[in-house]
Amino acid sequence: MLPPAGEAVSIVEVAPRDGLQNESVVLPPEQRAEFISRLAACGLKRIEAGSFVSPKWVPSMAGTAEVLKLLGDRPELRLSALTPNARGFADALASGVAEVAVFMSASETHNQSNLNCSIAESLSRYAAIIEQGRATGMPARAYLSVVVGCPYEGKVAASKVVRLGVKLLEMGCYELSLGDTIGVGTPRQVSELVRDFIAEGVSPERLALHLHDTRGMALVNVLAGLESGVRTFDSSAGGLGGCPYAPGASGNLATEDLVYLCDGIGLQTGVNLENLVDTSAWMAEKLGKRPVSRVWQALRATKENA
Amino acid sequence: MLPPAGEAVSIVEVAPRDGLQNESVVLPPEQRAEFISRLAACGLKRIEAGSFVSPKWVPSMAGTAEVLKLLGDRPELRLSALTPNARGFADALASGVAEVAVFMSASETHNQSNLNCSIAESLSRYAAIIEQGRATGMPARAYLSVVVGCPYEGKVAASKVVRLGVKLLEMGCYELSLGDTIGVGTPRQVSELVRDFIAEGVSPERLALHLHDTRGMALVNVLAGLESGVRTFDSSAGGLGGCPYAPGASGNLATEDLVYLCDGIGLQTGVNLENLVDTSAWMAEKLGKRPVSRVWQALRATKENA
Repeated sequence: MLPPAGEAVSIVEVAPRDGLQNESVVLPPEQRAEFISRLAACGLKRIEAGSFVSPKWVPSMAGTAEVLKLLGDRPELRLSALTPNARGFADALASGVAEVAVFMSASETHNQSNLNCSIAESLSRYAAIIEQGRATGMPARAYLSVVVGCPYEGKVAASKVVRLGVKLLEMGCYELSLGDTIGVGTPRQVSELVRDFIAEGVSPERLALHLHDTRGMALVNVLAGLESGVRTFDSSAGGLGGCPYAPGASGNLATEDLVYLCDGIGLQTGVNLENLVDTSAWMAEKLGKRPVSRVWQALRATKENA
Repeated sequence: MLPPAGEAVSIVEVAPRDGLQNESVVLPPEQRAEFISRLAACGLKRIEAGSFVSPKWVPSMAGTAEVLKLLGDRPELRLSALTPNARGFADALASGVAEVAVFMSASETHNQSNLNCSIAESLSRYAAIIEQGRATGMPARAYLSVVVGCPYEGKVAASKVVRLGVKLLEMGCYELSLGDTIGVGTPRQVSELVRDFIAEGVSPERLALHLHDTRGMALVNVLAGLESGVRTFDSSAGGLGGCPYAPGASGNLATEDLVYLCDGIGLQTGVNLENLVDTSAWMAEKLGKRPVSRVWQALRATKENA
């Protein structure tokens, strides 16, 4: 059953971090701050602003403190930044960002490859960050990736995902974002995963879905999430971030596609789709590429032909 | 609610007609027949083989009789051909094709533009064809297009769609394919349309959905259809047919995407996805383009990198 018309859906806009991080062009803090301001003007409130990691690892996220400084005090927004370790958390705290986010994988191999440590080490590292966040008034969000399939280990057991997810919530994260990082999942897997969390006492209101459109399944999985009670979804303006296979192939679910779907079924996102299409066009020009979103393409073409 | 795993979904493969008709390259009957044979070898049973219309109007469908002759007797398949008028029906009858299809629009302006006659004239023309089909053992399928939105008239009233659809079924069509020709629909519209047909006594087993992926909504609408009891979907190998806006933009729902979704949720299509990806690659080469299907792109890339 679809949620009744009029219900609200919360979008976490990830293009300025998860999106830009996976693009080959590195943008200066000024342009990243302007991107965030433009996204906010479209009605997006929850925005991943950057990442406090070593610029040696992730050059595209260098200067995240500068991005936040340029944005200044924006009490109407919930800006967040990724903090992989104590050093990152200290930088986040100094930057004045509203929220922090911790991230790990549901498969041991992917965690090792991505974070260079074991799942157990990630958990213990994050326990300290989440606790400090609580003490300093910075709520922590958790990302758990490869929750359906892992590029190294194949199918990931739902029981493992639930165990780790529940752990992250118990440690104090206010929300758990479940990532189908390689975009292999289909609706029954999503429904069953949410059902398994609910069976463990987790309200679907504390869950978010972070879906990749690699195989065009992001929106059907959103629908499965909506029908299971999930109301929070991560997405990326223009589908920015990750051409994992070929030109035109898609990584992150495009915010345009998510908003078009929600508008169509009468759910409130607060986002102005037309402004968002213009914002993605502006960013695409900086990156020298076209957004992969089909909604973007259709609306843009309509505009150009008008 | 998703259908239980193990249920069957019927795919009507439209690439050899609806797909090729909307491509700029015109292929000879030999290649079209080979395309159909290859699709059949992938496990597709219901295939639109061509159209008996004047080659002056639709040059790409010239030689449909020759296509069918080259295919020979294929009792395991259900090949169909579009028959817009009495002349077309006579040609279809002579060709030995198993089924005919009639097509019209739910909006007056679109019907005029597409068929050069009024809806009332279409209905009266088809009454004769459907009756002849019944007399000669050729079942007729009906396509009703622009069932959600019309490029000329905007939103199309569901009541009008239901009235015309019921009429076509009452006239003797065994199945009604509801086409979101411009790809604007979203799941609630699909669910409500199917519900309205059911309220008029039409079993969802007599309905099919013909969805376009222009705004990436085809699969969410398939899901809404599945949850409403529909088990038949039209799709086009490689997403062939219609780049209505821009390079990379998509018209027809790609069969690859539909099969991946059905495989994922445990529904039986009888189609071998890997073979289908190869078949679409073969056809794409003939047309000098890449399939727009994301599943195609992801699977092909996996193969090329292996």
